[in-house]
Amino acid sequence: MRTIDWNDESDSIVMIDQTLLPLEYKIIECKTLSSLCEAIRSLRVRGAPALGVAGAYGIALAATLSSANDMDALTKDLQVAAKTIKATRPTAVNLAWGIDSTMDAISDAFSLGSIKDVVLSEARKIADQDVETNRRLGKHGAKLLESGDTVMTHCNAGRLACVDWGTALGVIRSAVETGKDIKVIACETRPLNQGGRITTWELMQDNIDVTLISDSMSGHVMSRGMVDKVIVGADRITGDAVFNKIGTYTHSVLAKEHEIPFFVAAPISTFDPENWEDTVEIEQRDANELRFLKDQQIAPADVKVYNPAFDATPMENVTAIITEKGVFYPPFLLDELLV
Amino acid sequence: MRTIDWNDESDSIVMIDQTLLPLEYKIIECKTLSSLCEAIRSLRVRGAPALGVAGAYGIALAATLSSANDMDALTKDLQVAAKTIKATRPTAVNLAWGIDSTMDAISDAFSLGSIKDVVLSEARKIADQDVETNRRLGKHGAKLLESGDTVMTHCNAGRLACVDWGTALGVIRSAVETGKDIKVIACETRPLNQGGRITTWELMQDNIDVTLISDSMSGHVMSRGMVDKVIVGADRITGDAVFNKIGTYTHSVLAKEHEIPFFVAAPISTFDPENWEDTVEIEQRDANELRFLKDQQIAPADVKVYNPAFDATPMENVTAIITEKGVFYPPFLLDELLV
Repeated sequence: MRTIDWNDESDSIVMIDQTLLPLEYKIIECKTLSSLCEAIRSLRVRGAPALGVAGAYGIALAATLSSANDMDALTKDLQVAAKTIKATRPTAVNLAWGIDSTMDAISDAFSLGSIKDVVLSEARKIADQDVETNRRLGKHGAKLLESGDTVMTHCNAGRLACVDWGTALGVIRSAVETGKDIKVIACETRPLNQGGRITTWELMQDNIDVTLISDSMSGHVMSRGMVDKVIVGADRITGDAVFNKIGTYTHSVLAKEHEIPFFVAAPISTFDPENWEDTVEIEQRDANELRFLKDQQIAPADVKVYNPAFDATPMENVTAIITEKGVFYPPFLLDELLV
Repeated sequence: MRTIDWNDESDSIVMIDQTLLPLEYKIIECKTLSSLCEAIRSLRVRGAPALGVAGAYGIALAATLSSANDMDALTKDLQVAAKTIKATRPTAVNLAWGIDSTMDAISDAFSLGSIKDVVLSEARKIADQDVETNRRLGKHGAKLLESGDTVMTHCNAGRLACVDWGTALGVIRSAVETGKDIKVIACETRPLNQGGRITTWELMQDNIDVTLISDSMSGHVMSRGMVDKVIVGADRITGDAVFNKIGTYTHSVLAKEHEIPFFVAAPISTFDPENWEDTVEIEQRDANELRFLKDQQIAPADVKVYNPAFDATPMENVTAIITEKGVFYPPFLLDELLV
């Protein structure tokens, strides 16, 4: 099934609970806004494109749940819901984008019932478009990979970060689909281990050769000639920087040092040309993510922790940005690319 | 107590079991060679200087356990023990150094009993000298730190890596002892989390301000101006490179990129001028270190893993090497420094 979907029978959002992988493949159902917000905050659903769809379906869910009797009251309910959902992951521009796109559709509605219809139909469209976007993005990016390449990736920019196919891993899938022999090195991606848990799992499901390393090994494997290319996803691309999972910037500096191409694979919806590295607030996540691993204590329980969710990779470190509209090279003039 | 010591009453080696920290502070006793080898292999005792002492006391233990009736037979027993203990951590030059130094002392002995005496006395001397060495090293290194500095470190080159005081953390302790205000950023150091578990614990015991980060965050904290200096230990310093815990090389490249001084604190015994980066074999550790965290599964149980214990940092990335004989700057001509 898709990573996240709308269930018509129960008017709810269904998703793969990614916090349980690779031990358990479990589908969860969000029938309330608070369960959806909890799922987003706890990273049961994660990844920029999947969050966009989560936000969109969240508005559809809010419309279903609202007991408002007129269009104004319903719109107000949806505005409150939009704000609540956005607040769960303030740095994730796609979440806000999915919500805003769905909210914009309200203007096409002319009755209480039709608001509910248009927001759900808009959310479905966003989900379908995401699959289509990734397929196109993958096709463009696949041309950058040669048979025999070993590609390093960080976190999970795979089908589980999207509705299907994936961005960074979508490029790899598209290359494999055309018959190229591609091997992957997956960085485990502390502290939540999305690389170790999810990227490895989904590539193994597809029989794509994957080797797991710790994040700190990236310099070593590059220096030993084991990496031909790096591909990562993006949570937000501002005028001057790529915001992505913490650790991405570290890999970009190492790739530059070793003259290894560093590709960012992300849909145009991730572009945020009105912001800059210093205008984006990087969310700090719970200190316990570094003190505990599930119920296993791995550091003093009261140790001070610095735990930013993202870092910013300056455009100088980026070789190319792979989008559904094609592959872009420096200078990256986002405004022009958006046209 | 010291990290590792000889127990006169039971003729055994006692040590702090570092795999249990920070949850439990437990002293274990090695009464057999196999229990010592297990302790070394499982990293119950770890860190270059502590391993040197473990090797030295290992020879003393073998002498105590031997039932040989003449000097030749005892010497042969000790040679077998030396080979067995060395094989537990082939890259750790200090382990071999501690063993060889103790073995060399045999030539001073003139009877079966005196061999047992001289190896134990030599092992004790090595342990005492380690404390003295670290104190001197710390004093030299402390001059490189200014009050107000935040120092990033990787793994644990602290008192628990040594007999006492520490190398990288010894420099920090010595600076704090002279009244300087020093803050520390500790990288957790995957996959065995010596930074998260041990460095944080021992600094908190000493009331030194420490903040834990994941290894992948080092680029980010440097780019945000949060790091003034980096200090790491070393397992082996060859003519062209510093071998240390995997991840050290990654941090060195990032320090260079951000023009942050990168210091290596290590005793002269770590110097190995006859070897080079490409003549040292880097041990591969168990794949399960990346698949499991104790009993917690964190990756597919059958995922391929690449898990080198060490990496090599080229001398170009090293600002200075801090030893008990003083601080050395490039070019690092080890042969001359050894004189």
